[in-house]
Amino acid sequence: MTITKDFIKPMTWQGDSIKLLNQQKLPGEIEFIFLTTIEQVWESIHSLKVRGAPAIGITAAYGLALWGLQSDYTSEEDFRKELLEKVNYLVSSRPTAVNLYWALNRLVQSVQAVHGVEEIKSVLVNEAILIQQEDEQTCRAIGEYGFSLFPESATVLTHCNTGGIATSKYGTALGAFYIAKEKGAELSVYATETRPVLQGARLTAWELQQAGVDVTLITDNMAAHVLQSKNVDAVIVGADRIAANGDTANKIGTLGLAHLAKAFNIPFYVAAPFSTIDLAIQDGREIPIEERSSEEITHIAGTRVAPENVNVYNPAFDVTPNELITAIITEKGIVKGNYAEELKRVKELV
Amino acid sequence: MTITKDFIKPMTWQGDSIKLLNQQKLPGEIEFIFLTTIEQVWESIHSLKVRGAPAIGITAAYGLALWGLQSDYTSEEDFRKELLEKVNYLVSSRPTAVNLYWALNRLVQSVQAVHGVEEIKSVLVNEAILIQQEDEQTCRAIGEYGFSLFPESATVLTHCNTGGIATSKYGTALGAFYIAKEKGAELSVYATETRPVLQGARLTAWELQQAGVDVTLITDNMAAHVLQSKNVDAVIVGADRIAANGDTANKIGTLGLAHLAKAFNIPFYVAAPFSTIDLAIQDGREIPIEERSSEEITHIAGTRVAPENVNVYNPAFDVTPNELITAIITEKGIVKGNYAEELKRVKELV
Repeated sequence: MTITKDFIKPMTWQGDSIKLLNQQKLPGEIEFIFLTTIEQVWESIHSLKVRGAPAIGITAAYGLALWGLQSDYTSEEDFRKELLEKVNYLVSSRPTAVNLYWALNRLVQSVQAVHGVEEIKSVLVNEAILIQQEDEQTCRAIGEYGFSLFPESATVLTHCNTGGIATSKYGTALGAFYIAKEKGAELSVYATETRPVLQGARLTAWELQQAGVDVTLITDNMAAHVLQSKNVDAVIVGADRIAANGDTANKIGTLGLAHLAKAFNIPFYVAAPFSTIDLAIQDGREIPIEERSSEEITHIAGTRVAPENVNVYNPAFDVTPNELITAIITEKGIVKGNYAEELKRVKELV
Repeated sequence: MTITKDFIKPMTWQGDSIKLLNQQKLPGEIEFIFLTTIEQVWESIHSLKVRGAPAIGITAAYGLALWGLQSDYTSEEDFRKELLEKVNYLVSSRPTAVNLYWALNRLVQSVQAVHGVEEIKSVLVNEAILIQQEDEQTCRAIGEYGFSLFPESATVLTHCNTGGIATSKYGTALGAFYIAKEKGAELSVYATETRPVLQGARLTAWELQQAGVDVTLITDNMAAHVLQSKNVDAVIVGADRIAANGDTANKIGTLGLAHLAKAFNIPFYVAAPFSTIDLAIQDGREIPIEERSSEEITHIAGTRVAPENVNVYNPAFDVTPNELITAIITEKGIVKGNYAEELKRVKELV
């Protein structure tokens, strides 16, 4: 079975708009929306209509290109100045995800040596399209490397959604499951629901079910019992930002899974493209942790589940120290050991 | 401040019915229902209208007494035979909780030497009332012992609901928080929401808020990040059944918290009455784990949050091995060290 054809494309450049899968409506409804302004792009990222580090990088890149096309600057200097302000504006939509900055910075770099406002606009669009094309190849490679780490008939636990819709295609951690399916390998997946936003229940369970992968949904707090009793071979998660020493910011709950994997002697893998690795940050303490609104916890699907006026703490990410990570799976290969040295070395490989 | 007067009584014997706080409606609505048949009692326990190991023991005892009063047996032998069948019937409503069996067995024992159907009926009622009265004293003692373990200005994390409404009054793990409040001690509590049934969000946050205790609600998967970054002094949970060696069955998620507490070098306490300790069971492997319906995970507050037909695994409890438990807090004192010896020794104290 090849599942390549069946993937839903989460974002598509339309020339004058971005066609975006509204992930907030999944799994009940497959709705596509058309973003025609940079403000709509900011809002779609901030409100999690599009989420997943690679996917928001691609969408933000299209958003910046869209702003460029719509601008009516005649002065190249003014255009470039405003371009940098728009980069900062888009970065503010999700401060933890480094791909967002990486993708936007790549667009800025791509027009450094280009001259003429119209020419610059055109290069911005082409570069954004290129980022999406490359992400597809990157995810395929991550999936192949990830799959190579699984034993036969593997049982794997994953957290949040790192799938096709979190990227351009395939996904990062979920990419390994799709490659397994393509190759006809037996595989069972436990997916944690991932409160508060329920990406596991709404997105991962749905994506894997669509692709015919054997998936069982659990609540986040069932992970310890499952790791203890279900012969789980590996835990695999994605990443929102990886520091130079391998410390990894990812969806809240990842840190707990990493500690549990260690306690039960199960390998713990992080799957991420190199664009997630931020060599400018030495260790996890420097990674800003986004706090989100209390309503994500006090309300579920619009219904209040906690008392009025209750104090809430809602960090969207946590940071897993490098010593709990068995390996980081990238498009350039599997990195392990001394992350500070190895990440730098592998990043420099062509 | 004394908060004793302000407690809502979760169950009250009415002579011909049981007045029960419907915990399924909390925190949105404070609804009392009146149970007039043993079948309604079974359903109320099974559907979690009443939950918490001590509270379901008391409610089940009243249910058995209620059945007795309503029965029209003239033969003492027939009455006693049916009484045992009704015990089994009520035990089937929640198979993991040993207090249920303990309370019902205590009623059966109380009428061993009693003769005459009417006299037996009367003793059953009185014994059930006595169980509730004793539970109040038990919880008060557990709360005092629990509080004695906290440092000044403690920050404590708890899971599920082990509060006043899970017992007759005060609660077990939460009892320590109420004693702290009574004594004017500074205390901050992190309460995990406790998916799938959200006892932490709906009940613990509400109870503590009502009592003026400083409580912050988090999702279950935020516990690791909070233990890592918020100077938590202790984790304290309740228990549904404790084996002779100290292995503890409690709400799903407890096992993960115990491993995390160990990883972050934080004491992990179990607070429970001796009626929760089942010396007939040698270790945790013998404790049956109740699995509940998939709808608890796929739906929240009536809204579907996962795709249709997704596989779900929904164990209601997990078992924490004794070596992860710093101490077990009982009404007879704080038990630690060799649980197999100490639990037996302390249980035999008057």
